[in-house]
Order: sequence, then C-alpha cells, then structure tokens
Amino acid sequence: MIIVMQPDAGDAEIAAVEAKIRAHGLDVHISRGTERTLIGAVGDERKLDPEMFDPLPGVERSMHILKPYKLVAREWHKASTVVDVRGARIGAAAVQVIAGPCSVETVPQMEAAAAGVAAAGARLMRGGAFKPRTSPYAFQGKGIEGLTMLKDAASRHGLPIVTELMDVRMLDTFLEHKVDVIQIGTRNMQNFDLLKEVGKVDVPVILKRGMSATIGEWLMAAEYVAAGGNHRIMLCERGIRTFETAYRNVLDVTAIAVLKKETHLPVIVDPSHAGGKAWMVPALSCAAVAAGADALLIEVHPCPTEAWCDADQALAIDEFASLMAKLDAVAAAVGRSVDRGVAANEPLAA
Amino acid sequence: MIIVMQPDAGDAEIAAVEAKIRAHGLDVHISRGTERTLIGAVGDERKLDPEMFDPLPGVERSMHILKPYKLVAREWHKASTVVDVRGARIGAAAVQVIAGPCSVETVPQMEAAAAGVAAAGARLMRGGAFKPRTSPYAFQGKGIEGLTMLKDAASRHGLPIVTELMDVRMLDTFLEHKVDVIQIGTRNMQNFDLLKEVGKVDVPVILKRGMSATIGEWLMAAEYVAAGGNHRIMLCERGIRTFETAYRNVLDVTAIAVLKKETHLPVIVDPSHAGGKAWMVPALSCAAVAAGADALLIEVHPCPTEAWCDADQALAIDEFASLMAKLDAVAAAVGRSVDRGVAANEPLAA
Amino acid sequence: MIIVMQPDAGDAEIAAVEAKIRAHGLDVHISRGTERTLIGAVGDERKLDPEMFDPLPGVERSMHILKPYKLVAREWHKASTVVDVRGARIGAAAVQVIAGPCSVETVPQMEAAAAGVAAAGARLMRGGAFKPRTSPYAFQGKGIEGLTMLKDAASRHGLPIVTELMDVRMLDTFLEHKVDVIQIGTRNMQNFDLLKEVGKVDVPVILKRGMSATIGEWLMAAEYVAAGGNHRIMLCERGIRTFETAYRNVLDVTAIAVLKKETHLPVIVDPSHAGGKAWMVPALSCAAVAAGADALLIEVHPCPTEAWCDADQALAIDEFASLMAKLDAVAAAVGRSVDRGVAANEPLAA
Amino acid sequence: MIIVMQPDAGDAEIAAVEAKIRAHGLDVHISRGTERTLIGAVGDERKLDPEMFDPLPGVERSMHILKPYKLVAREWHKASTVVDVRGARIGAAAVQVIAGPCSVETVPQMEAAAAGVAAAGARLMRGGAFKPRTSPYAFQGKGIEGLTMLKDAASRHGLPIVTELMDVRMLDTFLEHKVDVIQIGTRNMQNFDLLKEVGKVDVPVILKRGMSATIGEWLMAAEYVAAGGNHRIMLCERGIRTFETAYRNVLDVTAIAVLKKETHLPVIVDPSHAGGKAWMVPALSCAAVAAGADALLIEVHPCPTEAWCDADQALAIDEFASLMAKLDAVAAAVGRSVDRGVAANEPLAA
Repeated sequence: MIIVMQPDAGDAEIAAVEAKIRAHGLDVHISRGTERTLIGAVGDERKLDPEMFDPLPGVERSMHILKPYKLVAREWHKASTVVDVRGARIGAAAVQVIAGPCSVETVPQMEAAAAGVAAAGARLMRGGAFKPRTSPYAFQGKGIEGLTMLKDAASRHGLPIVTELMDVRMLDTFLEHKVDVIQIGTRNMQNFDLLKEVGKVDVPVILKRGMSATIGEWLMAAEYVAAGGNHRIMLCERGIRTFETAYRNVLDVTAIAVLKKETHLPVIVDPSHAGGKAWMVPALSCAAVAAGADALLIEVHPCPTEAWCDADQALAIDEFASLMAKLDAVAAAVGRSVDRGVAANEPLAA
Repeated sequence: MIIVMQPDAGDAEIAAVEAKIRAHGLDVHISRGTERTLIGAVGDERKLDPEMFDPLPGVERSMHILKPYKLVAREWHKASTVVDVRGARIGAAAVQVIAGPCSVETVPQMEAAAAGVAAAGARLMRGGAFKPRTSPYAFQGKGIEGLTMLKDAASRHGLPIVTELMDVRMLDTFLEHKVDVIQIGTRNMQNFDLLKEVGKVDVPVILKRGMSATIGEWLMAAEYVAAGGNHRIMLCERGIRTFETAYRNVLDVTAIAVLKKETHLPVIVDPSHAGGKAWMVPALSCAAVAAGADALLIEVHPCPTEAWCDADQALAIDEFASLMAKLDAVAAAVGRSVDRGVAANEPLAA
Repeated sequence: MIIVMQPDAGDAEIAAVEAKIRAHGLDVHISRGTERTLIGAVGDERKLDPEMFDPLPGVERSMHILKPYKLVAREWHKASTVVDVRGARIGAAAVQVIAGPCSVETVPQMEAAAAGVAAAGARLMRGGAFKPRTSPYAFQGKGIEGLTMLKDAASRHGLPIVTELMDVRMLDTFLEHKVDVIQIGTRNMQNFDLLKEVGKVDVPVILKRGMSATIGEWLMAAEYVAAGGNHRIMLCERGIRTFETAYRNVLDVTAIAVLKKETHLPVIVDPSHAGGKAWMVPALSCAAVAAGADALLIEVHPCPTEAWCDADQALAIDEFASLMAKLDAVAAAVGRSVDRGVAANEPLAA
Repeated sequence: MIIVMQPDAGDAEIAAVEAKIRAHGLDVHISRGTERTLIGAVGDERKLDPEMFDPLPGVERSMHILKPYKLVAREWHKASTVVDVRGARIGAAAVQVIAGPCSVETVPQMEAAAAGVAAAGARLMRGGAFKPRTSPYAFQGKGIEGLTMLKDAASRHGLPIVTELMDVRMLDTFLEHKVDVIQIGTRNMQNFDLLKEVGKVDVPVILKRGMSATIGEWLMAAEYVAAGGNHRIMLCERGIRTFETAYRNVLDVTAIAVLKKETHLPVIVDPSHAGGKAWMVPALSCAAVAAGADALLIEVHPCPTEAWCDADQALAIDEFASLMAKLDAVAAAVGRSVDRGVAANEPLAA
C-alpha cells in the first residue's frame, strides 16, 4: 500500500502514518519526491485498508498496490480451473452450452425443452424454479415442485441441471434434489450470507455478475465462496447496466478477456439476459465464444411466445439448433470446439 | 398498455395481438396511423407485460402506460405516510436525523456515540452489528453481541435504533432484540425473499436504494414489502454508481424530488455513504434537506480515525454538532425544522 | 406520438392537447381507458416533440412512436449501404481492416507502418495528424505536415487513408490533401457545425460514437451528415463509458446487432480504443467480427513501446499479422471473409 | 509517478524502466516489497504518462501521483477566483443568478424575459442564439439576429449576457456583439480547438461539464482555456448521464463539494438541464446553493408552454420570482446571500 502525503505534511504526520503501518506488522519505506512524500507499506498489505489512512492528518490519499483477491487470482494459481459437472467439463478446451427455459412451467414444457436442447447438443440444462421478479405480483416460479420437474426432465435426457438459489433457507432442499450446479443470480452477487453458505457445500456454483458490479467486486464475491472451501466456481457475465436504452444490458465482452487474465476460474456468458431479445442471441453468442468464453448459458423454450417469463428472449428449439451449428464454426475458428458429449441424450444415473 | 405494430403488420397479426389481450380479460382499442397501427389494451394493464407481446409476429414493441407499483404510489394514496418510531415521526413536517457509527465495536465506543449524538440532537441511532463487506477477510460485524450493545447504549440515551438485516434467518433475533427500525441495505434491495419476510413483521423498514437501481425498481422493491402487509416503509437514497471516480457514489438529489411526487413514503438521505468522505457530508446533508429529504442517516463516531470500518466517512461528534446547527438553518429556509425532540437523552422505556 | 393524460384531466385539458396537435396539421385519435385517457397524433409525428405537450395542464407524459431518424433508418432504405473507398468496399460481404498508428510521428515510422499493415492484409490505413488530447500539454499531432506524411506513406503501399478532422476550419486542407475518409472522433460526435460541413462534401465519413452517446443520438448525428447530402457514412463503435475501472471502455457488441437492424449504414468497430490495452485487441476484434461488424479500425505501430501516444494499445506488426490470420477464420465461421484485396501493396494512383 | 512491476520482473526489466524515467530528466527511487517492486519517478511527473511504461516488459501498471491540472488547481492557487462580469461578481460571497430563455425567439419574448428576470433579481441574462439540437430538423436558433435581440433586451434591463458559442468561426461575431460571457456547451467540452480559441480572448467563459465527463477531464478542459491565457473561467455542472430514466440527468451535487476543494474557479449549477422538468428546478436550485454553488443558471420564459425549445423545463416569471425568495433564505442558511445588485434593471452602458 502507498500513502501519498499532502504537500504540506510535516514530520509528525509522517511519523503517525509510519507508526500505524508498523502497528499492523508491516515495514515502512519512505520516498520524498519534489512535490509529495510517499510512504510505502512493505509486507502483506491485505491487512491494511485506505480508509485506515485517508482520515489521518496530512494524508492526501492512499491506495492498494495488490489486488484484494487471492484464492481466485491467477497470480496465485496459474493453471485454469476446470469444473467437472458429471462429466461435462467447463473451463477446458471445449466450449460447453447450457440451455433451457427461463422458468420451469409444466411437465410437457420441460420434457420438450430437455429433449430439444439435448438433441441440439447442449450438455447441461438450465431452468428456474425460484424466480427473482421485479414485481411481487409476477409469477414467482413453481418452487420445489419446479425443482422436481426440472431434475426429472433433464435426467431423462442425460443433462445435469443448473438452477438459481435465492434463499439461503432453501439450500438443503437443493442438495436433496441433487441440483448439479447452483446459480447465484445477479441480484444476489453480494448477498454475502448466501455466498458463505454455498461456500460450504460440495456443489459447483455459477456466480452471475451483479448488474453494476465491477470485476473486482465480482472476484471478491467469488472469493467469499472460495474462502468457505468450495473452489468449483464459475463466473457468468450477463450484461451490465449503462445509460443505453436501446437494449437491456450491454454484454461486457471486454470482461471475458480481463477475467481470463485475472482469474483461473471458468468464464460463462449469458447472451439471453444481456440483450434481452431473442434476435440478438446469435450475434452475442458468437461474440462471446470468439472472445474466449468457456461456456454459454442460453434460454431456449419449446414455444417462446407462450413462455411465462422472459418470453422475449428465449430461442425456439430450431433456432437454438441453428445457433449450435454456428457456434461449432466460431469455436473452431478460435481453436476450440463445442462439446456435444458422447453420453448426450442418454438418461443420467440417479 | 400499447402495442406498436410493425409497418408491414397484416390483419392476422393484429388479430393475434387482439386475441391475446382479450384472453387476459382486457378490452382492445385499435388506432391506425399513417405509419403504424397501435393497439391499446383497455383495463387493468398490470396483468400484461411487454414480453407477452414483443415476440409475436408483426409486433414492433409494446409499453406500459401505467406505473407498475400501486401500494406505494402517491397516485393511489395521496397523503404522505408518516412513520412513527417511538415518537420520532419521519415524513412529517420536521426533519429527523439518525446518527451513529458504521459498526458497533465496543461498549465504551457505543456509549460515547450514543451520548454524543443524543446531545447533538439526533433522535434515532444507527449502528451496524452485521456488516456487508466486499471482502470475506474484513471485519464482518460483532453480530448478536453487537445488537445488544447497540440497543443498550441507545436506550440509555432515549434513542430508538436502526440496524441492518442481511440474513433472513436473523429476523427473529432482530425482533427479540426489539430493533426499532430494520434497515435493508443497498446490496439486498432486490433480495426478494428478505423483502417478503420483512413485509410480514410489524417493524418499520428503511429500504436503501440499490447501487444502480432505477427509481422504478426501488419502488417495486418497496411494493414487495407493502404487499406483505408492512406499510411502514422509508426509502433511503445513498448515492448511485456512475462513471465518476473522484468520489464514491453520486448523491442523487433529483431522486428526492421525483420520489416526493411518485410515492407517499418518507425519503431519507444517507450523505455518508454517498460521497464516502467525511468532509463532503456537511455539503451533501444541507443539499438533501434543501431538496426536500425527510430525514438524514449520518455516520458519527467518537473517534473516526480509529473506526473499524468506513473510518474515512464518519463525522466526529463535534463536527456532527456543528452540522446540526447548520441543518436547523437550512430546514428553516425551506419551511421545516429539525426535530430535536423533547424526550431526547432520556432513557427509553424497555 | 401518444399523449398520456393525468387521471384527473378534464375535457378542457384534453381539448387543448387536441388543438395543439391539429395546429401542426396532424389528426387526433382519442382512447379513453379505465385509468388514463390517451391522445394519439396521427400523421407525421416528426413535427411534434414531447416537450410541446408535457408542460400543458393535465398531461402526464408524451412519447414518440416513431424513431426520429429517417435518412439513415433501415425502415426507409432496406438495402445495406456499401461505401466504396477507392475500391475497398465497406458494408459488403467481405470484412475490411483499417490499420495504422495512433498518431503520425516520422517519415520512417509511417513507411514502416504502411508497409507492415499492407503486407499483413489491411486495405486502408489510419493515422492521426490532429490529435484530441485530454491535456493541453500533451503532443497535439503533427498537423498538416502529418497529413502529407500519412498520405505519402499510405499511397506508396496502395492504401487509402482515414484521418480525424477536429476543426471545421481544416476541412479544405483535408480536401486538398485528398483524405480518403474523414473520421469524426468520439468527442465531436455532437459537434453539429462540424457534422453539417462534412455533410456537404463528397468524401466518406467515419462517425465514431460519443463516449456516452445512445444509439439513437448517434444515428441522429449521422442524420445531420446525411441531411447535408453526404450519404457515405460509416458508424464506428469504440467502447462506451461505464462504471467499470478494470479497463478503459466497454466495447458495446450489442450495438453491432442493434445497428444492423436499425440502419443501413456499415458498422465499424475500433477494438483498440475500447479496451485500451494491446493484449485485449485480438479477443475484441474476433468478437466484433463474430457479432457482425463490417470493418475493424486497429492501431498498429512499428514499435509500440516508442509510440508518441496510446503506446499501450497499439499492436506490433507481427501481432497484427497473426490477428489477421485469426480474423480470416472467424469471418469464415460467420459466412464472410476478410478482404485482402488484389491491389494491396501496389501504389495508388494520385 | 509510480510504476508497479510484475511479481516476476527481472533486473533488466527494472533497469529499462529506470532508464526511461531518467531519459525524461527525472530521478528514480526503487522500493522492493515482499510481493512487488515499485519504481518511483521523482521530479515533474507531468512529463510522463502511464502509457509510456505500461507496455514495457515486466510492468504491471503505472499511475500518476499528482493531478494533471496545474493552472486551475487550488493546490497552486489557493485563493478563490472571482470573475467580475460588468460588476456582477461570480465566485465571491454572494450567489449570482443567471436567468433567461433557452432560446432567443422574438423581440417581445426577449423583452418580457429580460424585464421579468431583472425584476425578480437576476443580475445576468442567458439566451441561446445558436442551439445544439440532437435533430438536424429541429429549430437551430435565430443565429446572429438572435445575438442582437438578446443583447438589446438584456442591456435595456441592465443585464450582461451569457450565450453559447458552438462554432469557432463565430467567435469574432461574438466579440463584435459584445457577448459578456461565452458559454461552452456540454457537447463541446472537449472540442479542443474551440477551447484553445476562447483561451485567447478576453471574455469570461462558462465551461459546462460534458454529459459523462469526469471531474478530472473537465478540469483539464478548463486547463486548455487557462493555458491560452484566459483565466476568467467558470465551471457549470448541468447533470450527468446515468442509467436512470425517471429524469434526464442526475445533478451531481457531490461535484460541487469536490470542485470547491480541487479548484479555485467558481462553480455554477444549471438545475434546468439537469432534471429536464420545470417542477424539479426549485428543489435542485435550493440543493445546489445549500451545497455551495456560486451561481445558478436557470431557464425562465415569459410563456413556457409556448417556448420553441425545452418548453418543459422553463420556469414562468412568477415561478422564478418565488424561487428567488426561497434562494435568499437558503443562501442565508449557509452564510451567503443572493446578489440582487443595486444597478439591476438600469440600462447597461453600451
């Protein structure tokens, strides 16, 4: 950490900063420049925080030199993490596609969805049983019944499931229903109690980026999960909020490149929530794979116009199948492939 | 709701939209313009959603005409809501000031803080026992012990308490400790399960605005609480996230004016978290009161440079006392006063 | 245009709105709903503006139904525009790559840059002679001398030139120096006098998106150029400003898809300015082509670490050549190719 | 400037950074920490730029310690600048109010406006003769004729004029018409050629903040004007662009406090453009004065509903007069007053 002193800071003020650094067990290194004196804290600066120094007399500002995350940082763990979900490996050379409807609605809908996405080549299935809805009057999901419907349909077609956990009290139920991947949604990215609990279980976690979370905050949220002992974490970019109103959120492709450099965790992209319109999904999916995404999370519905939520952003099954063909080509162009699995469409063992 | 058809939409497409509207029990009104046909849904449009129509063939886009919130809307409840917290009335003519440290640390710290803020004229006390920290390695709050320390210190000085609830499993504990006002923090504004639970209890709620929540989303979050039956809701503006890096968040004073028009709920402003620096607090506090805020939520610490968190933004007690004098003048300038209470600094009945 | 009346609006207020619409030559269509009366203006609503109605008594709000742009809208001009720059066609099936240094520095630097980018397959050359610098103390560009250096080097290698015009008084000089494509930079996107002037000349224009311009504002800026008579306009996405600080600007890939739908103009992407770091350029370039960009504008310098500006974002020539090979593959994956030209590296006729 | 080396940077890489710093005439100070080596450049770091070092092998990142602005910085010029406009002093103890219509329309409109705002206590008059309009089809202002109309009406009532310069070619005309204060609009904040030209004349300048300009960029734009020799600069906050759609722009009151600390220049606030609605103007005006603004720039029109542009945000003259009374009280609350002048409403000498 570096503390920049004000131009008129005196010796007593510098000594006070120095004493505070030493009190935390770090060493001090002072550099007197022509316009400012800088004080460096030498040692594990994660024990310090700018707010400890900024209010001291004579301090102009202070700043960390190191990134605050450790377990999730590539600096400390060079090899890329590969998360294995019942044989579907995310973060390895092959790109994975996770597909399914926004929300679990009915048994026939789920059967059609599972059959369709499996046939088109997806290796995991998504579906929401508990839905975070902006309005208390909107459909809130089928709940536990929906979990069963999702698990049943997906299993028949050999697909592990991904579904969102909103309420920490529901975690045991998720474990009982053998949810294969727990999704933490964008609105809960900094629900720290929820992060701590999923950090304690042995189930892979997809951590969606908060709507206006910086990459640093997102990685610190992942650090919460890792600090609990669960290292099977995947990060999912799903669009960030900006001033633009022509579409819902801007898909942050730059974040893909930054994440691949900063962290060893796999990077998933959700092109459906980003743009918010089905017609944008192919372009955004291709862009994500071209930029280096390890997996895609795509909304697919057997009959989009009848979907109970987010009807506007789901692909129909034939549209999804065409997209898969395109993704094969784009993945190949960047030296990867789309994993279509050998076991796909075979029932999963219970 | 209005559905705008594409320029080349045919009769069959128009009929399909019409049928879908009627299927939800609303009436239809068609207007054929020179460049577009518009279809109006006449009736309670809250049953409809743009996503129901946008994916239909021939539809260009659709939009709500009415606001989605009802219980919290001034349109449906003209009189301003006044929330009475053990005699301190928020939303009435007098401006209330809630003050105290970011986090509960020690018994002497809390005693000094309570004595100080009560003497300076605050009528409620804030303090965090459970802290939402970006880093899993940072101090996470004193927990239940902190609740007791806060309640004890505040009660000795006649101050009802405001403290943040992060985990739904802690709600009963909050009730047992007679927390007077439950604060829902910025990171939990759309933690819908938490909102539903605080909607069921008979304790006033301060709902902080999400860091990048629109006013519409914020009011819908309040609607979640109200829909559960708890109408004692106060909205707290605490700065929104923008591109600017010279300070932490921009205090959205415009939101104060908009909220006073859109909703009957009281509006609180937190000038401490907005700017993130103690020296900005006086200017932002005066601005908030001048713009019409009903209350302020200010961080005050007996010794800011020693605070365990957010040291950089807390006012010292003497600084807070000076600010109170300034606020008296600003409140008077806009035809209000600062409520300093008659009972202040008298112990509260248990 | 639709005017939404307040719930308590009376007949006189409705009549006043009606009269104002008719005074502008449009027809009126009134729809009385259960909660609001809506007034539709039937005819060319571009003569009207929400601000004409919003301040009238009884009006809640009013909104356009049609987009405000016309000449640049795909609705009115279905076929995609192809801009031909001395044989390099932008907006056609093949993807074009425009490459070169941020700023023109020396004759040898320009020769090396031109030779390098031409050999690697670029068909146009970029280079800044007039530089918009945040600081008045920074290098402001070589000016007119730089124009000559750019034109000479590029011509020797068969490359038409793209360079930024900042000052309207310099337009004649640009014409004299036979600038092939005039670039309007991000800071001048709404410099309306400049737009009007380039609208009058017969030279293709690249219009960069303002750092926080909506797509609608950007298309209206293009409309300024088109309204002057110059229809050879290309739009260039170069990253938008958000709250994120991990990189400079977020490349808005979603905008590519939206633009291809909304306008017939070609879409160029500048991956260099978006991320601001050379190591991000390959990922962003591939993403842009995968998402449908018609051309790329890439910073390439013979010796990036010695560049006089934006050293941090320029690719070296060998890095650029590798990227071109990757782009060939990505373009092929989406059914396109990269145009490497037949005439490349042959001197251009004067 | 500090250069942070990568953890694995070797001696040769450190030496290369050192050499580059020394080549620019600065001294070097190396600090080897436990996890990173830091290299400090000692001397006038304004000669250096992070982009010079970031692309070098072994460099992680580099950062300025000093602010890049000098002439406009309070650090180098402690006393607040007071700009005297024919006796109306901006930046002194008294708050100034500049008022008038968005655009100059007709002689009677200007006479009514001038008479009204002078009577209500404004000491300067604003009015636009050249209008920056998003649409090329919208009213573009009365041009030179408008300048005359503005000057004539304002002079009859003793009011110096403030009007926007968009096109550098119009500067001489502004001087001929004796424009008292040249306004640089939000879209031209980084029109560097325009800034350079107004830096050369002896007329006060109001520099509006770009819609998404950081405070640092804004001060650097002011530095352009100051570097040209014109030090009579006033900064005008007019709302910044965010994700919020409930109003036009968010008035950045925090910026007022930050500017008063960072620069010696006067700070003006435009509450009319910020919110974009007349009913928000009083709350925002009071907030701005409470937060420390030196002046307000308010749109006032004799008949707002008939205004040719921005009708929705102009106050009527009686509304403006009421606001002035309120501002007197708020200014007094923060130890200031509103300057109503002694000479107001007396014709100005030519």
